[in-house]
Amino acid sequence: MKLTATVLVRVFFALALAPLASPAADAPRLGNRPAPIRSPEVSADRQVTFRLRAPKATEVIVAGQWSTNRIAMVQGTNGVWSVTVGPIDPGVWEYSFAVDGLSMIDPGNPAIKPMREPRTSILHLPGVPPMLHDFQPVPHGVVHAHTYFSKPLQRPRELAVYTPPGYDKSRGTRYPVLYLQHGSGDNQATWVAHGRAHWILDNLIAQGRAKPMIVVMMDGHPAPAGDPLPPGENNSTRFERDLLEAVMPFVEANYRLKPGAAQRALAGLSMGGEQALRIGLNHTDTFAWIAGFSAGAPAADAITAATSDPTGINKRVRLLWVACGRNDFLLKRNEDFIALLKSKDIHHEWHLTEGAHSWPVWRLYLADLAPRLFR
Amino acid sequence: MKLTATVLVRVFFALALAPLASPAADAPRLGNRPAPIRSPEVSADRQVTFRLRAPKATEVIVAGQWSTNRIAMVQGTNGVWSVTVGPIDPGVWEYSFAVDGLSMIDPGNPAIKPMREPRTSILHLPGVPPMLHDFQPVPHGVVHAHTYFSKPLQRPRELAVYTPPGYDKSRGTRYPVLYLQHGSGDNQATWVAHGRAHWILDNLIAQGRAKPMIVVMMDGHPAPAGDPLPPGENNSTRFERDLLEAVMPFVEANYRLKPGAAQRALAGLSMGGEQALRIGLNHTDTFAWIAGFSAGAPAADAITAATSDPTGINKRVRLLWVACGRNDFLLKRNEDFIALLKSKDIHHEWHLTEGAHSWPVWRLYLADLAPRLFR
Repeated sequence: MKLTATVLVRVFFALALAPLASPAADAPRLGNRPAPIRSPEVSADRQVTFRLRAPKATEVIVAGQWSTNRIAMVQGTNGVWSVTVGPIDPGVWEYSFAVDGLSMIDPGNPAIKPMREPRTSILHLPGVPPMLHDFQPVPHGVVHAHTYFSKPLQRPRELAVYTPPGYDKSRGTRYPVLYLQHGSGDNQATWVAHGRAHWILDNLIAQGRAKPMIVVMMDGHPAPAGDPLPPGENNSTRFERDLLEAVMPFVEANYRLKPGAAQRALAGLSMGGEQALRIGLNHTDTFAWIAGFSAGAPAADAITAATSDPTGINKRVRLLWVACGRNDFLLKRNEDFIALLKSKDIHHEWHLTEGAHSWPVWRLYLADLAPRLFR
Repeated sequence: MKLTATVLVRVFFALALAPLASPAADAPRLGNRPAPIRSPEVSADRQVTFRLRAPKATEVIVAGQWSTNRIAMVQGTNGVWSVTVGPIDPGVWEYSFAVDGLSMIDPGNPAIKPMREPRTSILHLPGVPPMLHDFQPVPHGVVHAHTYFSKPLQRPRELAVYTPPGYDKSRGTRYPVLYLQHGSGDNQATWVAHGRAHWILDNLIAQGRAKPMIVVMMDGHPAPAGDPLPPGENNSTRFERDLLEAVMPFVEANYRLKPGAAQRALAGLSMGGEQALRIGLNHTDTFAWIAGFSAGAPAADAITAATSDPTGINKRVRLLWVACGRNDFLLKRNEDFIALLKSKDIHHEWHLTEGAHSWPVWRLYLADLAPRLFR
C-alpha cells in the first residue's frame, strides 16, 4: 500500500496525540513501521516482560544481572519474541538480548548503559522504601556535561561534573572534589547514567552522612580505539596527563573548589581503580584521599613514589581505601596489592566484601566511601 | 579453555594498558569475549568502514542518512561483516544496521541518538573548515542534566538546560530563554547529543550572531509509553501542564532569567512543533517568540486564543517563525497552517526550504532562528 501524505498526517496525529504516546511519528519511514514494541514492561509486582520483534531469528535470549540465568524468549505472532521474568528484586540491573548469538541492547528501552561498545540496557526497579541509589524527594544536585579541548591530548574530550544541592545559590561557599573514574568498558557518563552516583550523593548529603562535594567524572580512555599514541605512552599515562594538566585546571577555573590536597579525592573502579591508585599514590601532594574499587591494582614498580617513602605517604594521605569482592576476578591482584602496602607499612583500609566485578558492588562502595571523605 | 584468574589479570592489563585501548576489560565475561570490532572507522579522506560480528546472520545492511542507498555488508572471516563507504560528506549523520531485517545500533559505536526506541547510531564527520554544528575553538557553554519531580505529572522527569559561555562567571547578568523541543521519536537529550544545539549556540554567540541565551530542553513525552492517562488528557495537554506548571517555575528558580514574555521563546520540531505552535499561540502573554520546525502544525480549533484575537496576537508576538522542507511529509499540514494564519491576518514568517523531515534540516533551522530571537 502506498500511503498518501494525508494518511501519513492522520497517522502522525493519531500517534503523536494518542494517550499511549508513540515514538514512531517523525520519520519519513513512518508508514512502513510496525507498531512499537513495549519492552521492558514492569508489572506492579515486578514481573518484567521483555519483547523484541525479530521475525527471522531462530533464537532470542535475555541475559540480566539480576540472575545468572540466560532466559530463552519465545516467538509469538508477528515475529515478536517475549518472555516474562520475575519477580525481579529492586535494583539497577544490566541486561542484553542475544539474537542468534548477537549481543545487543533492547531497542524498546531508551535507557542504555553508556559504553564503548554499547550492548547493554538498563532495567531500574526502584525499591520500596527507596534504595540509596534511587531518586528520592530530597534536594538534588546537577550534572554538568562539558566538552573541553585537551591540550596534552590535542583533541576534544567529554567531562561530567556533579555539583551538590544548593551549589548554584551558595555564592560564597567552596567545596571539596572527588575525581571518580569508571572501568574499561564505560565512559564519563556511566557513573551517573548507570552508577547513579548523583542520586547516591544527593541522598547521603540529605541524610547528613556525606559532606557536600563536587564529583568530576572523566572519560578514562584518552585516545579513541585504534588511534596511534606517541612512543612510550599508553592509555594510563595519557589519562594521567589529561587529569593533571587539562581537567584539574579546567575544573578549578570553572567550579568553586576548596584548595589543597586535603580537599581532593581520587577514586575509580577496575581500570579506573588502577588509574586512581597509581596516580594518587604518585601524587600525594595533590590527592590526600585515594580509593580503588575492584581495582586493577598497580604493581610495586608503578608506585615507587609511595613505596620509597612510606613515612611521607602516611603523613600526607588521609585515607587509602581499597575494596574488592570475594568473587571478583581481580581479587588476587588486590590481595597482592594489600600485601605490598603491609610490607611497606603504608596505612590503608582493606574491605573484602561479598560480590563480584559489577556495578551493584561499586554503588555500595561509593556509598561506603563518600561519607568518609573530607572529614 | 577455562581461564585462570592469573590469565584474566594478564589479559586485563594487556587490554587496559595497550596502546589500542580496549573496551572489554571489566566484565567477568572477559575471557569469553572476542576482540573488539572497530566500527565506524574513518579514514583521512572520509571513507568510512562499518563492521559487525554476526556469524549466524544471512544479510547485514547499513542504511545511513548521507545517502538514500541501503548498502549490503559482506561477510568476511570470523563472522565479521563489513563494508567501506564514501567519501561521505562532513555532517552529523544517522545510521542503522539491519541484521536479517532487525534494525539496530552499531554496537561498535558509543555515539547513539537518544530515542524512545534506540536503533540509530551517530556518525559525526567534522567539516574542514568546521561547520556551524562542529565543536570549535571558541568559548563554550555547559549542558546541565536535571531530574525533577513534576507535581502535575506525579513522576520524576528529565530536563536538559544549556547555559551560554560565561554564564557561571556573570553573576549579575540575566538571560533570555529558549524552550526547544524535539520530535516524537526523541527525548530531552537529542537536541544536544544529535542536534548539537549547544555547539550551534556556542558558535553563533562567538560570531556575535546570536544573543547569549539559555536553552531548555524537556522530554516531550510526559507519560512513559503504555502508562494510563487521566480522562480527557493526552500527551500534548500533559506536556503543556508540565511546561507551564513544573518546568518554567523550576527553571526560573534555578537560572538567572530575564523576566517577561519578550525574553521567552518556544520552538520545536515535528511533534515538538505542534507543542510549540499550539502552546505558544495560546499563551502569547508568556511567549513572544514562537517557532515550528517541520511542525505537526495545529488546526484552527487548537489555537482559538490566537485566531479569535489577531490584533492582540500581532501586538504581543514578536516573531512567529514557521519552516518546512519541500520534501517533508508534513508540508501540506504546514501550508494549511500558513493559509490559516494568512486568512486571520496573523503576522508570521514562512520559510519553505530544501530538505525533508530530518535533523540536517533542523540544525539549519536553529541556526537561522537563534540569531533572530530577543532582538
